[in-house]
Amino acid sequence: MNKITLLVHCKDRSNIIATVTNFIAKNEGNIVYLDQHVDRDQNVFFMRLEAEFFHDSFSTESFKEDFKTNLAEVFEMKWRIYSSHKKPKMALFISKYDHCLYDLLGRYNSGELNLEIPFIISNHLDLKPIADSFKIPFYHVPVTKDTKPEAEKAQLELLEKFEIDFIVLARYMQIISPKLIEKYQNKIINIHHSFLPAFVGAKPYHSAFKRGVKIIGATSHYVTEELDAGPIIDQGVTRVSHTHSIEDLIAKGRDLEKIVLANAVKLHTNRKVMVYNNKTVIFS
Amino acid sequence: MNKITLLVHCKDRSNIIATVTNFIAKNEGNIVYLDQHVDRDQNVFFMRLEAEFFHDSFSTESFKEDFKTNLAEVFEMKWRIYSSHKKPKMALFISKYDHCLYDLLGRYNSGELNLEIPFIISNHLDLKPIADSFKIPFYHVPVTKDTKPEAEKAQLELLEKFEIDFIVLARYMQIISPKLIEKYQNKIINIHHSFLPAFVGAKPYHSAFKRGVKIIGATSHYVTEELDAGPIIDQGVTRVSHTHSIEDLIAKGRDLEKIVLANAVKLHTNRKVMVYNNKTVIFS
Amino acid sequence: MNKITLLVHCKDRSNIIATVTNFIAKNEGNIVYLDQHVDRDQNVFFMRLEAEFFHDSFSTESFKEDFKTNLAEVFEMKWRIYSSHKKPKMALFISKYDHCLYDLLGRYNSGELNLEIPFIISNHLDLKPIADSFKIPFYHVPVTKDTKPEAEKAQLELLEKFEIDFIVLARYMQIISPKLIEKYQNKIINIHHSFLPAFVGAKPYHSAFKRGVKIIGATSHYVTEELDAGPIIDQGVTRVSHTHSIEDLIAKGRDLEKIVLANAVKLHTNRKVMVYNNKTVIFS
Amino acid sequence: MNKITLLVHCKDRSNIIATVTNFIAKNEGNIVYLDQHVDRDQNVFFMRLEAEFFHDSFSTESFKEDFKTNLAEVFEMKWRIYSSHKKPKMALFISKYDHCLYDLLGRYNSGELNLEIPFIISNHLDLKPIADSFKIPFYHVPVTKDTKPEAEKAQLELLEKFEIDFIVLARYMQIISPKLIEKYQNKIINIHHSFLPAFVGAKPYHSAFKRGVKIIGATSHYVTEELDAGPIIDQGVTRVSHTHSIEDLIAKGRDLEKIVLANAVKLHTNRKVMVYNNKTVIFS
Repeated sequence: MNKITLLVHCKDRSNIIATVTNFIAKNEGNIVYLDQHVDRDQNVFFMRLEAEFFHDSFSTESFKEDFKTNLAEVFEMKWRIYSSHKKPKMALFISKYDHCLYDLLGRYNSGELNLEIPFIISNHLDLKPIADSFKIPFYHVPVTKDTKPEAEKAQLELLEKFEIDFIVLARYMQIISPKLIEKYQNKIINIHHSFLPAFVGAKPYHSAFKRGVKIIGATSHYVTEELDAGPIIDQGVTRVSHTHSIEDLIAKGRDLEKIVLANAVKLHTNRKVMVYNNKTVIFS
Repeated sequence: MNKITLLVHCKDRSNIIATVTNFIAKNEGNIVYLDQHVDRDQNVFFMRLEAEFFHDSFSTESFKEDFKTNLAEVFEMKWRIYSSHKKPKMALFISKYDHCLYDLLGRYNSGELNLEIPFIISNHLDLKPIADSFKIPFYHVPVTKDTKPEAEKAQLELLEKFEIDFIVLARYMQIISPKLIEKYQNKIINIHHSFLPAFVGAKPYHSAFKRGVKIIGATSHYVTEELDAGPIIDQGVTRVSHTHSIEDLIAKGRDLEKIVLANAVKLHTNRKVMVYNNKTVIFS
Repeated sequence: MNKITLLVHCKDRSNIIATVTNFIAKNEGNIVYLDQHVDRDQNVFFMRLEAEFFHDSFSTESFKEDFKTNLAEVFEMKWRIYSSHKKPKMALFISKYDHCLYDLLGRYNSGELNLEIPFIISNHLDLKPIADSFKIPFYHVPVTKDTKPEAEKAQLELLEKFEIDFIVLARYMQIISPKLIEKYQNKIINIHHSFLPAFVGAKPYHSAFKRGVKIIGATSHYVTEELDAGPIIDQGVTRVSHTHSIEDLIAKGRDLEKIVLANAVKLHTNRKVMVYNNKTVIFS
Repeated sequence: MNKITLLVHCKDRSNIIATVTNFIAKNEGNIVYLDQHVDRDQNVFFMRLEAEFFHDSFSTESFKEDFKTNLAEVFEMKWRIYSSHKKPKMALFISKYDHCLYDLLGRYNSGELNLEIPFIISNHLDLKPIADSFKIPFYHVPVTKDTKPEAEKAQLELLEKFEIDFIVLARYMQIISPKLIEKYQNKIINIHHSFLPAFVGAKPYHSAFKRGVKIIGATSHYVTEELDAGPIIDQGVTRVSHTHSIEDLIAKGRDLEKIVLANAVKLHTNRKVMVYNNKTVIFS
């Protein structure tokens, strides 16, 4: 059996759903999931569809070709088709904080995540033992002012060599270079330790403490050139009070960061995220 | 312009979506919303669809006829088609608590609710001034052991006379008679002041206090013959602690009850709820 | 029986609790509640205490005198003592939105709020019928560019005449004058329709929609000269998604605003809020 | 410097707070935290107090003696005094699920938990590699119908040998023997994968799925002889919908279980929990 996931967006107009579902039916596919959304402000149509094909002669490649010619070009669609046979490959970038790393690797180990982790990159050596205990190759790529270009080159080589599909910054404490951002557009997931857009930049828990907020948050988003301003994938919050010190906020925040980042990774790898106008459509 | 909402469920099989969307397209309709769900355990397919028809000759009645003959009977569907022209009519049953009443009437007044309220029934006179101030007819139908049959008769007459579509029990403190339940199946919405199935029956806040739970809840559900066991439409929760007395739980619970009940009413009137196997499918 | 609530803050040092509790004991009082907090960064001690006095000769006034001389001056305390006999008087400022008004008056009516509402002020006439139906005096004080000074004068006269203790802006759509803010420092409660400090200023739901956040919020705070920057009393949040339009955010936000504002009013009238360094200590 | 934490409960009466705080002052202690609660139904007074003693001659043991003679016996208090010098020792009981194990060990490793873990007991060998990678002794104590008495004996020997203070059942899939429960009263923390008292017993996620609830939960509680009926320490909840399969509920529940269990462990080790009448008082 072949199963594909189709993501589509285009200018809204009549009959798109009927045309696409017909196309699937003509190809002897069975639709097992369909969700759609229309942004009325922008007049844009979004659709996510999963279909199963049981005949032996089915080829994802020729299906893609047909779809492109007969539908995508006619409706001027932006589209992607994924085969369920191929697990996405994730590169993990880390620094010194271990909570998101433990959390993701724990989930990975227990089979909760539909992905492969060919390697971990860190600008520090501190967390190598954790990578080792989970038997995942660990590459130490230090980043200093002077070594930035070399570091970027080393990162890119690894990403290409292992055919990485997307990058997760699990509290990686370095700015990602514009070249990487451009190459992996909407494919670099960051976890920011605040309820964005409140408290952008460094030390958000300190700012939250100073402002005396009663709720703190964490935000996972795709990395864009503007810092902490990329499309938001997921957010989580928790209550705090005057009794909590900055250290308490940081500890409570760790739990948010873990869950919100893991959620974003799952949504991304299950092809449930579409990006448009610096915002996300998240299918259920 | 005519707009219809179609709700369908049937045994799952290939091509249902394509067939239905084609049928809409052939009738020159434009699909503006489609959501679907498959219960894999039960092998049941659910769909909700909104379509707009712009040609003058469109008639909801003949569309229904066509749909019935060409699709519903072929796929052995359970189905409903609603025209957006007709607002559902809601009867409010109340007793002595006013918080849900104020809340619903406040929302009604501000245009938040897509419905009509032809009348309010109460077994007590206490809240008549509120109904009066909102200018909604108020009927006093007392219920005692002896007058049960008469009360039921009076209720049924009012419901029929005003062609009521659904009933909301806004903390109505009487058991609904089996006859009413049968006549308005999945059309009587109750708000229960606990996180069901914890604390069924009377005095749930007292039970919650006694058990020392750290979270209390409220549950809106359709009324079935078994008490507090009908299909759940929505639930809400809030944290409590040892510092809260039973009175505090009751006060905190009121806020939950208001919001959860209003939510259920909105979901119901927007035709977003389907019931199957004593559970609900809630479309977004 | 006399019951007092004591709020105190001062530089932290040894033995404050023992000294104060001793003082209560010597005055034959029984402490029924005591909570305290130390801000370690600022080295400030906060305490809230409720005590009951059963002897006939007790006088709140002479107790205050004693407390001032024997404790407050020795420890250089900022302090307030409230008698439970006197309900705080609240002035409601409104404009055209009715949801917070209905909510507060509904709670007031049902006895949930420990306060009096001598009058409602509005710069529009739209909501007068609601004030009338709850039998609360309504004053129409229009505010235009030219009439600002007169309006402020009229407001101040009413506030003084009725010996108002604190003001609640229930979606009042005018900037409060610096004179009022100074006169009612930490006594004017506003509800802002965003999760502050995200989306300060006008149209926060539009900004939230544009940014594509997955959670929206509401914030109640004391009004200070800097807009939306005063000490936060309470915050609430709720999840949203790409399926929600700006109108949906506004509707969902209304429920947050009602509950967060009512919460702030209850905390304030129960003397549970202390302000320090533009932040609040909220006792439980 | 010596720091002690005092927990007290007794029949409520006048002057307890003043007497205790005076006692601390006379011993040249400085109170850094005091919280108290009165259960008005039961007329019981609860207090938690932290005090620091800076003089060299201070001895926790003689302080305890004094407290017992001069206060505890006079007021007929149930009381405990802990020195901050001694970290509580926790035994981890596990079976085959690894999520709570990874979570607790990750927190332990990063210094978030104020405790020691002398060993892990499991009735299966599956998770031994995880214990090994964290360098914590792992004891395999299989439990079958026939070996129950021996297993219990082996467990008790280990608990005694390592002077264990409390036990955490991190999804341990065996019933704890009455002997252990009696010996470690209010010292065995379990995590139950439902919002108790809804769905007691086995397979709660299956029951939640069947009932069609819109919110699922997890509950940490002290183990008592009656299954899933002990005093509740903490609870957490998360929203679910018809789109979630039982497997989805289980996956979402894992995140709740981790956080709720970790919370309970932190509250217990920070001496913030008092048990009375099968309920908990949780100090902040």
